[in-house]
Amino acid sequence: MNADVSTQYRPLDSQSVVDYVRQRAELRDIFRPGEALEAVEVGDGNLNLVFKVWARAEPSRTVVLKQALPYLRLVGDSWPLPTDRARIEAEALKIEYSLVPQHTPRVYFYDPDLYLTAMQNLDRHIIMRKGLNAGVKYPLFAEHIGLFLAKTLGCTSDLVLDYKTKKEEVARFTNPELCKITEDLVFTEPYRKTERNQYHKELEPQVLAWQADDALRTEVAQMKEKFMTQAQALIHGDLHTGSIMVNQEETYAIDPEFAFYGPMGFDVGAVIGNLFLNYAAQEARIPDPVKRADFQKYLTDTVISLWKVFVREFQRHIWDRVDPINMPKAYQDDYMLRILQDSAGMGACKMMRRVIGLAGVSDIRGIEDVTGKSIAASLALNIGRALIMRRREIRTIEDLVEIATSCRPSYPWTH
Amino acid sequence: MNADVSTQYRPLDSQSVVDYVRQRAELRDIFRPGEALEAVEVGDGNLNLVFKVWARAEPSRTVVLKQALPYLRLVGDSWPLPTDRARIEAEALKIEYSLVPQHTPRVYFYDPDLYLTAMQNLDRHIIMRKGLNAGVKYPLFAEHIGLFLAKTLGCTSDLVLDYKTKKEEVARFTNPELCKITEDLVFTEPYRKTERNQYHKELEPQVLAWQADDALRTEVAQMKEKFMTQAQALIHGDLHTGSIMVNQEETYAIDPEFAFYGPMGFDVGAVIGNLFLNYAAQEARIPDPVKRADFQKYLTDTVISLWKVFVREFQRHIWDRVDPINMPKAYQDDYMLRILQDSAGMGACKMMRRVIGLAGVSDIRGIEDVTGKSIAASLALNIGRALIMRRREIRTIEDLVEIATSCRPSYPWTH
Repeated sequence: MNADVSTQYRPLDSQSVVDYVRQRAELRDIFRPGEALEAVEVGDGNLNLVFKVWARAEPSRTVVLKQALPYLRLVGDSWPLPTDRARIEAEALKIEYSLVPQHTPRVYFYDPDLYLTAMQNLDRHIIMRKGLNAGVKYPLFAEHIGLFLAKTLGCTSDLVLDYKTKKEEVARFTNPELCKITEDLVFTEPYRKTERNQYHKELEPQVLAWQADDALRTEVAQMKEKFMTQAQALIHGDLHTGSIMVNQEETYAIDPEFAFYGPMGFDVGAVIGNLFLNYAAQEARIPDPVKRADFQKYLTDTVISLWKVFVREFQRHIWDRVDPINMPKAYQDDYMLRILQDSAGMGACKMMRRVIGLAGVSDIRGIEDVTGKSIAASLALNIGRALIMRRREIRTIEDLVEIATSCRPSYPWTH
Repeated sequence: MNADVSTQYRPLDSQSVVDYVRQRAELRDIFRPGEALEAVEVGDGNLNLVFKVWARAEPSRTVVLKQALPYLRLVGDSWPLPTDRARIEAEALKIEYSLVPQHTPRVYFYDPDLYLTAMQNLDRHIIMRKGLNAGVKYPLFAEHIGLFLAKTLGCTSDLVLDYKTKKEEVARFTNPELCKITEDLVFTEPYRKTERNQYHKELEPQVLAWQADDALRTEVAQMKEKFMTQAQALIHGDLHTGSIMVNQEETYAIDPEFAFYGPMGFDVGAVIGNLFLNYAAQEARIPDPVKRADFQKYLTDTVISLWKVFVREFQRHIWDRVDPINMPKAYQDDYMLRILQDSAGMGACKMMRRVIGLAGVSDIRGIEDVTGKSIAASLALNIGRALIMRRREIRTIEDLVEIATSCRPSYPWTH
């Protein structure tokens, strides 16, 4: 166990969580005294326990309780993880909720003794990645996530916060251990031989070529440096399609435990990169070329649309309120262009690590046919490489999409 | 007074400082019990009291005590200043001393109740700006400051510190109030009409042209953004030639109360920009064109030399120790080029604000002849504008110097 774990800490289970819920005054608007409650642990991660609790008489009265484990569950207590991430997640959720309540689960309370957050149960939504893998379109997603990004990034930056609050927020969201996971898994390990990389063996020729590519490693190093030094905004830090819950009407970003002050392009790029990972996966997932082209076009249209919404909302909520003397229009345009180019570079790194590194995504790794998986993985690597190497050419979101969609898989190897 | 001032706080005077010194065990290696001590207050700033204390029998046994005032002295207690800057200065000095003891005054102790630092008395040195204004050359300065910059910047960055220490240091050196002074006085006010700007009236046409220049304000906004967001290294934050004490053999950087995690180019640029301010001032200070050219060449040679030492020492202490797989040579070269271009942009801002803004420098404002002062100020503005607007062209330090030395003053106005 961690040396700095609270002495009050105990992991809950599906029995003890019911008693715990009954004791919390903050939940008395949801549950009635003494009524029958049911609970189940649904965490599929290794870092946290996640309980759903509901009233037996009326299951729509429900909460989620997310409790941080002070160690990585898979390996017992051999890999301690900082419980402080639970505080950071709860505090990030509160800020996001204050800015975009329609896209953020509401937090009822945070319990610092148990590293536990009680929040809104998104029981009518699914993980977006699962929906995309099944070929489901979410027509409102671009509008929702573009607004989420514009407000959560713009309103936590120096463009909106006063000089003092911003700097205090940087210190409050210092999150070294979880940043370290990203630094290692996204920016370092995929580009060198390590035991933790986990690509399938058919892909090895391309992975070795990527690792031997000095120019690629140079660009990735620039992205890593930016991730580690640019305290631009309070970013979610892990905004892939597995951290987004959707249905046809609504979109919620969940799980900001990686939140810290970092580059805006890391969040925007996470969304775009994960849409392109799905785009690459559909190369193998949808056999019918017409249906495939239709779904891939939905994905690229979504990329274009979410960026345009982001720019529109950033204009409305941020630029329309800054002083144009010290921040002239040309500066504002350049600022947005730099976010776009950063998004290409960061999204590229997030794509490539999902193919080469420890933590894959089901979009690609879930493809059972090895040939199909190799085609999808190879295409994802090629899109990633093109986006990061050519990011300085990008002037518009259409340029970015054009770079990505002009890529083809290198598999089967032709040499 | 500040609400958060220590209850033990009292400003010392030249009597009480002697009793205080006698009580401090940390100084018993310097002063003998009961011996006669003398003291004088020598602070010429408005933010701090500075006492020199020495043994009457042997004046070379001496210390300096620097005590922060919790308000700006000029205006009584109407402008409170954070006493936390005294802690930051003492802690920054300790880090700098651990890296370059030959260029940092030694700290004997920091007293958190009195916001007071006892340190080495640099009694054989003068403020570099005064020496330069008198036309004195310091042949070892480039070697010394190049090493100081390489070690203090490189060794406090992510290139050397582990992921966790770096992020904790960023939080420990959060310095909002003093950063705000720089944000306002260096990056904001010179480029708009404000009551605090203080140029002489003959310069007004050029100042108004600078303030009307959208392209210039766009570049300055980028430098301000970088200052506010890029947590690259623990920078001194105020490394002008008035913060450097020299003689023909030694160089010391003093007064890091503005220290925080910022862009390396801000420190390198402060040195370079202040050398060019002196270069511009000599246009009026040295009437003999041969002598003037000789001193100006000394200044530009110093700029070239200090950058080359910086690069050489950065190679030795930093790049030779990083992992070349994830930080290939091309990345390292690009990193240094970005520092060079940042130094041009940051140095440019520091030059222009010294001409237009509240806090001038004696190099230029000390010129009594108005025509001479106008020539020097106009040249400084032209060098500043050229360096920031053309910084992306710069590939070598010689490029930077060429851009600066190809500038001429615009005064007298020819239109």
